[in-house]
Amino acid sequence: MKKQVLSVWVENQAGVLSRVAGLFNEVGFNIDSLAVGVTERSNVARMTIVADGSEEMVEAIISKLTQITSLVKTKKITEGEAVFRELALIMVDAPEARRSDIINIVEIFRAQIVDVGYCTMTIEVSGDRDKIQALEDLLHPFGIREIVRTGTIAIDRGVRRP
Amino acid sequence: MKKQVLSVWVENQAGVLSRVAGLFNEVGFNIDSLAVGVTERSNVARMTIVADGSEEMVEAIISKLTQITSLVKTKKITEGEAVFRELALIMVDAPEARRSDIINIVEIFRAQIVDVGYCTMTIEVSGDRDKIQALEDLLHPFGIREIVRTGTIAIDRGVRRP
Repeated sequence: MKKQVLSVWVENQAGVLSRVAGLFNEVGFNIDSLAVGVTERSNVARMTIVADGSEEMVEAIISKLTQITSLVKTKKITEGEAVFRELALIMVDAPEARRSDIINIVEIFRAQIVDVGYCTMTIEVSGDRDKIQALEDLLHPFGIREIVRTGTIAIDRGVRRP
Repeated sequence: MKKQVLSVWVENQAGVLSRVAGLFNEVGFNIDSLAVGVTERSNVARMTIVADGSEEMVEAIISKLTQITSLVKTKKITEGEAVFRELALIMVDAPEARRSDIINIVEIFRAQIVDVGYCTMTIEVSGDRDKIQALEDLLHPFGIREIVRTGTIAIDRGVRRP
């Protein structure tokens, strides 16, 4: 099964999120990540959904989504034609003696330290999924206390020629 | 109504996302943003939900969430005690003559240009909601073609003293 990415624009109405997630379930899509945010139109939310499934399942879900009255539009995002990003906050154990090791790793990844506690540091990192996974793997030996990730968002690349 | 932020950890099971979103709807919470991502435990997803509602509604939803068998835990996130971040990708009209103006704004916000097309640029920015809104407002006169936002994620600040 391939990772499929869909953008779904919906009018902000009570229950619409649950409805959309429910339809993915009906089609048998297992949602891998979901990001919902406001758009340039204040009453319209844009959902980015990453799910494991076949091309046929994508067609089925796009067809099912048209049942939702507050649907504005859907778009399948194609790898290679879009920019993919996600954001993570990672809290690691960081006693004073280990801080400089962590700072070195953070700099290599162009990540940022957003909080320093008595024996913890919290790192903010954005990038594609592989980059975030790589940083997580490198930080693992220090002791990861907590991770929160946004899920992937995607936007088509601009047209290259007139 | 206040903006309430909740972290909800659930086991990855079919339909759980739709179930959680449905419970928010039952309580009358209007979900403002939702981010779902994987965690340090591969079978556990963490949802960050921002919704407009009262303290009583928070208590009601936390109580309802315990009905979900695959629930791992919930936590209310308190402003001032946590780091809040979101990520956005913003595609703007960028004919050659206007590119340097856009680059200047991007640098001020410590944002990044992630794609340049024939007459567009796409900007990646992370920060709290106000920062992203401020950048969006400044880019508005150039012509925003498309925006995608992750929704907010949040992590508690580290303990300051032993």
